[in-house]
Amino acid sequence: MELIFLGTASCYPTADRSVSCTLLRFEDGRIWMFDCGEGSQVQLQKSSAKPGRIEKIFITHLHGDHLFGLPGLLCTLSNNMSESKSDILLEIFGPHGLRRYVRECLSLSRSMLNFSYVVHELIIAQHQYPDDWQDWKVDSDDDGRLHPQEIGGRSIVCDDNGVWEVNSDIVVHEATLEEALRDKALENGHSTPAMAAQFAKDIGASVLVLYHYSQRYRQTAHDAEGDVDSVTKLLAEAEAALSDCDSCSVVASGDLMEIPVKRRE
Amino acid sequence: MELIFLGTASCYPTADRSVSCTLLRFEDGRIWMFDCGEGSQVQLQKSSAKPGRIEKIFITHLHGDHLFGLPGLLCTLSNNMSESKSDILLEIFGPHGLRRYVRECLSLSRSMLNFSYVVHELIIAQHQYPDDWQDWKVDSDDDGRLHPQEIGGRSIVCDDNGVWEVNSDIVVHEATLEEALRDKALENGHSTPAMAAQFAKDIGASVLVLYHYSQRYRQTAHDAEGDVDSVTKLLAEAEAALSDCDSCSVVASGDLMEIPVKRRE
Repeated sequence: MELIFLGTASCYPTADRSVSCTLLRFEDGRIWMFDCGEGSQVQLQKSSAKPGRIEKIFITHLHGDHLFGLPGLLCTLSNNMSESKSDILLEIFGPHGLRRYVRECLSLSRSMLNFSYVVHELIIAQHQYPDDWQDWKVDSDDDGRLHPQEIGGRSIVCDDNGVWEVNSDIVVHEATLEEALRDKALENGHSTPAMAAQFAKDIGASVLVLYHYSQRYRQTAHDAEGDVDSVTKLLAEAEAALSDCDSCSVVASGDLMEIPVKRRE
Repeated sequence: MELIFLGTASCYPTADRSVSCTLLRFEDGRIWMFDCGEGSQVQLQKSSAKPGRIEKIFITHLHGDHLFGLPGLLCTLSNNMSESKSDILLEIFGPHGLRRYVRECLSLSRSMLNFSYVVHELIIAQHQYPDDWQDWKVDSDDDGRLHPQEIGGRSIVCDDNGVWEVNSDIVVHEATLEEALRDKALENGHSTPAMAAQFAKDIGASVLVLYHYSQRYRQTAHDAEGDVDSVTKLLAEAEAALSDCDSCSVVASGDLMEIPVKRRE
């Protein structure tokens, strides 16, 4: 079982670093995808993963750098899938609004698929919306008219604490900006490596994997030694924040990196 | 004045060839973009064009390989644009349904822009829709509720002949499949090089530029001599079809290729 990082950048893709898309590949080759930023289908071609083995896609939130690659991925999966596999049901999970997004993109582009899909939506508790959510009212409801290959999905409600479940050995957490830029990170709804480390400690994770770096940080592999504007700096900050925690280690992911995941004994 | 080809593939992008996106750069650096398939913003970074000089975007049709890069491009243009330029109005033109597509993608992803945009829609004549258009009814109308940075656009109606205007020296025409696969090309609404050549002759163009190749054809630059499954084959077919026409030459475009365009005397 491995995590395969197809894109580890925040905000926008470059030729060197693609935006968010992470695969979890099981021992039998089945794949769950987490986020699908623009260009993820090309990253997928470069990786060791087999596109036809994707069975579930989870979208963490609807920002474009986590979402805009999904319609193209669905079309390409369909183009490359033989008719004999058309009994597949691809399950897509994400926040309220995702069902409408997928349907609008596929319908307006008149994209038929040769497999079925379903979008299950997570319903956020009222108190979890940002303060300014009502300043720009967006209709996130779908009108109930299914895409020809769409199956009606579920609405999944969170528990009384506003979460679905947090019980992880390995945590993949964004670390967009360094600690010195914490205010800017918070302003944009992002995190620093120290914040990611604190969350990993809070839930008792044994491995923290960083990703979703600002494009200002070059990738570790390309760094000159001592380069301060690199992912190495973000990693060092997380390591420092975890120095009092023997049970948790930290890894900085990079595009196309594969990280093994062990099942609990 | 140049044409800059950012993507010349049909259907889906690969690491070697991106999907449709073509720039026309004027002598003063202003840019008009034609189509914006997924990944066009990364191709744009690799090119000699300056993203901030894009002032008009034309979407030829709403298939995903011509469209799915547009929302991400708009977000990245906004991210990279200084506040002082926020008086820009970006004009986007395309078929009916494009306004709704752009608005839904930007709104559901809660993407604010720091410039204004407008979508002008071309209204297709009833007799121009494919026969099976009514088999899958898609609501292409927008509901009139503008995105916060959107200006209300025009509806542009074609003339009695069902066209807007055709009067070109240079024609950029798709040539998806070779002549031996003409039936398959027609089935998918595509063209062969001979069909592209005929069109160029019909309108009296002096230069025909081929693009939008099936991914089955490798790019010219990568070919071994005599390789039959390459863009060279498509070019040869167009040249043969134009052998009786002294006034029209043909070029096979490739990703990141720049082709000079001369103004009429």
